[in-house]
Amino acid sequence: MKRALPVTREDNFPEWYQAVVDQADLAETSPVRGCMIIKPWGYGIWELVQASLDADIKRTGHENCYFPLFIPLSFIAQEASHVEGFAKEMAVVTHHRLKAVDGKLVVDPASELEEPLVVRPTSETIIGDAFRRWVASYRDLPILINQWANVVRWEMRTRMFLRTTEFLWQEGHTAHADKADALEETLKMLEVYRALAEDVLAMPVVVGEKPENERFPGADSTFSIEAMMQDGKALQAGTSHYLGTNFAEAQNIRFQGANGELTYCHTTSWGVSTRLIGGVIMTHGDDDGLRLPPRIAPKQIVIVPMLREKPEDAEVLAYCEKLKLELDKLTAFGAPLRAHLDKKPGKATNKRWDWVRRGAPILLEVGPRDAAGDAVTMIRRDKLRDGDKVLSQAVGREAFLQQAPGLLVEIQANLFADAKARLDANIRSDLTTFEAIAEYFGKATEDDEKGGAFKGWVRAPWAKPTGAELEQVETRLKALKLTLRNAPVEQSGKAAVCVFTGRPAVEEILIARSY
Amino acid sequence: MKRALPVTREDNFPEWYQAVVDQADLAETSPVRGCMIIKPWGYGIWELVQASLDADIKRTGHENCYFPLFIPLSFIAQEASHVEGFAKEMAVVTHHRLKAVDGKLVVDPASELEEPLVVRPTSETIIGDAFRRWVASYRDLPILINQWANVVRWEMRTRMFLRTTEFLWQEGHTAHADKADALEETLKMLEVYRALAEDVLAMPVVVGEKPENERFPGADSTFSIEAMMQDGKALQAGTSHYLGTNFAEAQNIRFQGANGELTYCHTTSWGVSTRLIGGVIMTHGDDDGLRLPPRIAPKQIVIVPMLREKPEDAEVLAYCEKLKLELDKLTAFGAPLRAHLDKKPGKATNKRWDWVRRGAPILLEVGPRDAAGDAVTMIRRDKLRDGDKVLSQAVGREAFLQQAPGLLVEIQANLFADAKARLDANIRSDLTTFEAIAEYFGKATEDDEKGGAFKGWVRAPWAKPTGAELEQVETRLKALKLTLRNAPVEQSGKAAVCVFTGRPAVEEILIARSY
Repeated sequence: MKRALPVTREDNFPEWYQAVVDQADLAETSPVRGCMIIKPWGYGIWELVQASLDADIKRTGHENCYFPLFIPLSFIAQEASHVEGFAKEMAVVTHHRLKAVDGKLVVDPASELEEPLVVRPTSETIIGDAFRRWVASYRDLPILINQWANVVRWEMRTRMFLRTTEFLWQEGHTAHADKADALEETLKMLEVYRALAEDVLAMPVVVGEKPENERFPGADSTFSIEAMMQDGKALQAGTSHYLGTNFAEAQNIRFQGANGELTYCHTTSWGVSTRLIGGVIMTHGDDDGLRLPPRIAPKQIVIVPMLREKPEDAEVLAYCEKLKLELDKLTAFGAPLRAHLDKKPGKATNKRWDWVRRGAPILLEVGPRDAAGDAVTMIRRDKLRDGDKVLSQAVGREAFLQQAPGLLVEIQANLFADAKARLDANIRSDLTTFEAIAEYFGKATEDDEKGGAFKGWVRAPWAKPTGAELEQVETRLKALKLTLRNAPVEQSGKAAVCVFTGRPAVEEILIARSY
Repeated sequence: MKRALPVTREDNFPEWYQAVVDQADLAETSPVRGCMIIKPWGYGIWELVQASLDADIKRTGHENCYFPLFIPLSFIAQEASHVEGFAKEMAVVTHHRLKAVDGKLVVDPASELEEPLVVRPTSETIIGDAFRRWVASYRDLPILINQWANVVRWEMRTRMFLRTTEFLWQEGHTAHADKADALEETLKMLEVYRALAEDVLAMPVVVGEKPENERFPGADSTFSIEAMMQDGKALQAGTSHYLGTNFAEAQNIRFQGANGELTYCHTTSWGVSTRLIGGVIMTHGDDDGLRLPPRIAPKQIVIVPMLREKPEDAEVLAYCEKLKLELDKLTAFGAPLRAHLDKKPGKATNKRWDWVRRGAPILLEVGPRDAAGDAVTMIRRDKLRDGDKVLSQAVGREAFLQQAPGLLVEIQANLFADAKARLDANIRSDLTTFEAIAEYFGKATEDDEKGGAFKGWVRAPWAKPTGAELEQVETRLKALKLTLRNAPVEQSGKAAVCVFTGRPAVEEILIARSY
């Protein structure tokens, strides 16, 4: 079975992933260790994710602003668990000048900073410092802000989009008068993320609360959306944190209530990042490359003229130009349809496979016969093949124009339905002992790393142990390369016994290998 | 004459500027030296500037992507004049970990990087390195890309928006097969900037070429748009550079022509930044605060209900809500009109002055009488006062709804016309000797720094000296705190004598004090 990528998911999942990133022109490694270059096709996807999410962030009452890239070292030190969580992965600016010594450019020692600056790994501390100044009275609350920014967490083992030293994200930060209001905010943004993942990225997720050991450093509770990749691993795709009064106490963020009393604010933070693109690849990609949900496809319909450097080329091109203009007038998902005519020099079959690998939802191949017959030859990326054979379909131009917006909606729904079926089919909730779970996942082998053994997730009852007992659970799972993902918001409510402690369970929690 | 700001332009221009930044809620200083916090109102303006420019950048065939924040030290060293231009203002990352020593958080010496990383001051070198990989054949050209990013240039004396250590910008980078194509690109983007400044920011500019001594480090030619601030100083508001083959040679960016020969690419780069917001303030602000051109006003029409904590408040609010919904259905400048109902607690007169200071183009005050009479009381920010008196006007609701989009267009045009008249009236082109120019500007005094002595610009004939001769010109001007701005693209063509050398002039050049 020949496919458009040099490696299949089954052969070697990580290599397949990297092949999609390369061959779909999403990103490439840069000469800066751990940092990637996001290429136009990959960045175009991110722009669409941003536009959709940004509208939701504003609709829910938040305003965008921008805080400094640098954070003074002393700020990072303010919240104890925050320090512990991030200190080991910080890029630190120590000097502000270079100079030439014997014709060689070096750091000028005379330019050493009095206080080193950390490149933000996240902005709770610098934004909390502003909240302290901005909040005086209960009338100032809630404060609801967001920023789109780059952040840096020094990573030793990197993987494009999933784990890079620099990445792009949005981080929301809010301050509230009480816990109820802050928790409502935390869950509201979690729902925004769920909707983004499922409705825009066509990536089904399980919404739930992280166990204590997986909380954001400095949070009272952390909620996440978890998506199942095609190798069965879980990807944490977005998190929303209720920070309690931890940062408020560390940074003295207080307000005067109606009664005149000074009270600490309850704060939240929440973020999603370019990691989502990694999730899209591993949710929808196949052995021919990426398959993009139309809502985040920079080009939804790509027209490839079949040119032969012959006189009839002009007619084909004119027909394609007209078709492109007609498509430009349509809307899909309530926005202008994004059509593209690929006029670059090059062979039409090469272009076909380039666009297949990039995951354009609909491909229209137009040759002299199509132009003469007022038709197009359509390839749907979600139904590319029947066995090995590529499926294409002749459709009248008028008929296609009528169907186009609906087809895109159908493709979006198909991709979601496929992924949702896979997710639902691969969460075992019938394993009631740790031994059964261990046996199910089996020993983590080299082969697993290649994605050969698809396992899915287990949903198991547990007693929600804390502290040292939870550490023990973590250790037992770690030996199997497993992690606790989240306790789904939707619980079965069945009485059961904790698979870890044998005590009565209080909820079900997801267990999986993960990114 | 009481005004809404504590200081007037005439009293002290720099203090007035800072007062607008503060009181219009645009930005504030951060605890990080030289870095600012852009607040929601200021960031909202930037988002509108971005949206407009981004559409133009895409319309002209460019694609967005994203390159690493960090640049290896060795890359910076590649282009000689580039190094010289930027080495003295670089934030340098030297370590990647913190650790606790005796309970104190310090930089971990064991985490020192083998090669220091510079926080990008601009991205020619890291993007050029990618161009080298991306360009093989003439068929790959042109490459037309852009990125929206933060950049860092270590500044000793900073001023909000105008000169900060970190700022936000876009940087376009392109590679072409020959000089003609690259120069065409350089001028095309210069025209995009002119249109942005004049049509969107309502800020008239003079388009021209920078003299040799003011070129971007590494450029063959630099073009700029220059705007006149209300203190008579020039603000360089955007630049577009033809880089020749300088970076291509330093970084080996070559392509194989149709004839098989390897040739260096000609590259360009161009950028505008959050500095534009400083330009807007100093072009349109008055002693009551900011005046925003409607196209970049985050809220174009603000409704302030006159509430008195009485039963009729409910009626007033309902009337305002309805009005807001009606305004939401309108379009202005081809986009949905941006209306806002200010329901925050607080006195209506305080709100009026807050919105005046923020520069919302139209304010609607609605009290019980307006609601009962199906009317609004309108205040136009561009015609706020008659002498000391605030001008307001009762308008029927229906009539206002009909006029609203047109009024916004009129305000946009008024602001531009005012600024254009000021620019045109304040460029002297009748001073034909250096002595006359020196006398006109007079000695730079402390008072000038306060903006007391409005001087405008001089447009003088010159012989376009180079090298040492140009340095002498620079020195003579510097003694008067003057700089060469640009040689306008539109030249009078009159024969004249160079004010610096006495030789026949080859063009006219602008001379001004500047930011």
